[in-house]
Amino acid sequence: MKLLALDTSSMTATVALLDDDKLIGEYTLNHKKNHSQKLMPMIEELINSCDLTPKDIDVFAVSLGPGSFTGLRIGIATITTMAQALNKIVVGVPTLEALAFNLFNTQGLVCPIIDAQRDLVYTGLYQWIDGHMIEVIEQQVLHIDELIYRLKEEEEKIIFVGDALEKFHDILKHNLREQFNVPPRRFLIPSASSVGEAAKVKIQNGLVSDMTPIYMRKSAAEVQYEERMKGRE
Amino acid sequence: MKLLALDTSSMTATVALLDDDKLIGEYTLNHKKNHSQKLMPMIEELINSCDLTPKDIDVFAVSLGPGSFTGLRIGIATITTMAQALNKIVVGVPTLEALAFNLFNTQGLVCPIIDAQRDLVYTGLYQWIDGHMIEVIEQQVLHIDELIYRLKEEEEKIIFVGDALEKFHDILKHNLREQFNVPPRRFLIPSASSVGEAAKVKIQNGLVSDMTPIYMRKSAAEVQYEERMKGRE
Repeated sequence: MKLLALDTSSMTATVALLDDDKLIGEYTLNHKKNHSQKLMPMIEELINSCDLTPKDIDVFAVSLGPGSFTGLRIGIATITTMAQALNKIVVGVPTLEALAFNLFNTQGLVCPIIDAQRDLVYTGLYQWIDGHMIEVIEQQVLHIDELIYRLKEEEEKIIFVGDALEKFHDILKHNLREQFNVPPRRFLIPSASSVGEAAKVKIQNGLVSDMTPIYMRKSAAEVQYEERMKGRE
Repeated sequence: MKLLALDTSSMTATVALLDDDKLIGEYTLNHKKNHSQKLMPMIEELINSCDLTPKDIDVFAVSLGPGSFTGLRIGIATITTMAQALNKIVVGVPTLEALAFNLFNTQGLVCPIIDAQRDLVYTGLYQWIDGHMIEVIEQQVLHIDELIYRLKEEEEKIIFVGDALEKFHDILKHNLREQFNVPPRRFLIPSASSVGEAAKVKIQNGLVSDMTPIYMRKSAAEVQYEERMKGRE
């Protein structure tokens, strides 16, 4: 079974090809957010370099969010279009779970944080026990102070990943002190092979999700529209 | 500081670009061993896609082996030529260390195994303590039975990575039972970003190695030559 996975939920565009036994290839760019221009050429480059065609792929997997609304729409539209055109299976994976999958069997707790603006983060908390990833706090939007308050209740070290780490590094370090941990740079950003591995676990457990993006909050445009509508009442 | 890292010690060809704060990009192909054809185009593709030129790179890092003799020669020749032409720093990283770097802060012990033919493996044993990787057994060539004997002395779980896992999976699992662990597929193969992260640690510790490949045993051609010479004595 060959699987194509991608994640465009943040500035990172990442594409991976896996089969039953191995990672066949992966291509990640974390340079500029121009997924609409770069994503399809990246997919093409990777598939061609592995001497495959889109028809050879059995499962298409994508990161469902939360994250950049535009990025999510591009990724989900691309993967569902390919799967539908080829009549193949499609699997969605929550972005926070895929991020926690970067740190296989790591000691302590993994806390992915994605920027949700206005001192809010999309977050969750995960623990690896005997090679299995367990959800400790389910995915939600929290104010950074609320997250810190909640994490202080845990006794273990917390390893942070995700794009909000840059913004909240100092406040997290200051408040969590010894608990605060950061992995090397390469583990901080989404990786399509992590999306692929998380998708495999979902398939094995028979958990095929619907493909609705996980936005978790309204877009700025929606908020503005609703405020304008309220004014008219 | 921008760093270009690569690993061609096995079937996998992998190239990564890192700067001080982040992984800028990574391209990995694990499909066919044709490094002599694919490596330079992969480097070019990655550098161009990140809007950089070779001149923008400050440090060049490469996996020194052990592994495929031909693969190592291609990788080391490529990276030292680029570094010398541009008058930049070059850093070598033992392949076994780079493989263990795939599993940041993992629970248990990490045992990379690379096929050395005739039931031998290039191997070592590593442990992550508080985010730092410690060498438990230094890199060496061992018969698979000898490795099993040695690992049974450890009480912790052992996570195996590396290309010899496919060949020795069953014998390791049968003998090590509960101790035997394998990570998801994506962590099994070399990753240039792991080479880059291991190179960063070496630079920080002032450990700039020479660029001699780590062959650890003689090539088949050398063994045959020596045997032929012996016959003449």
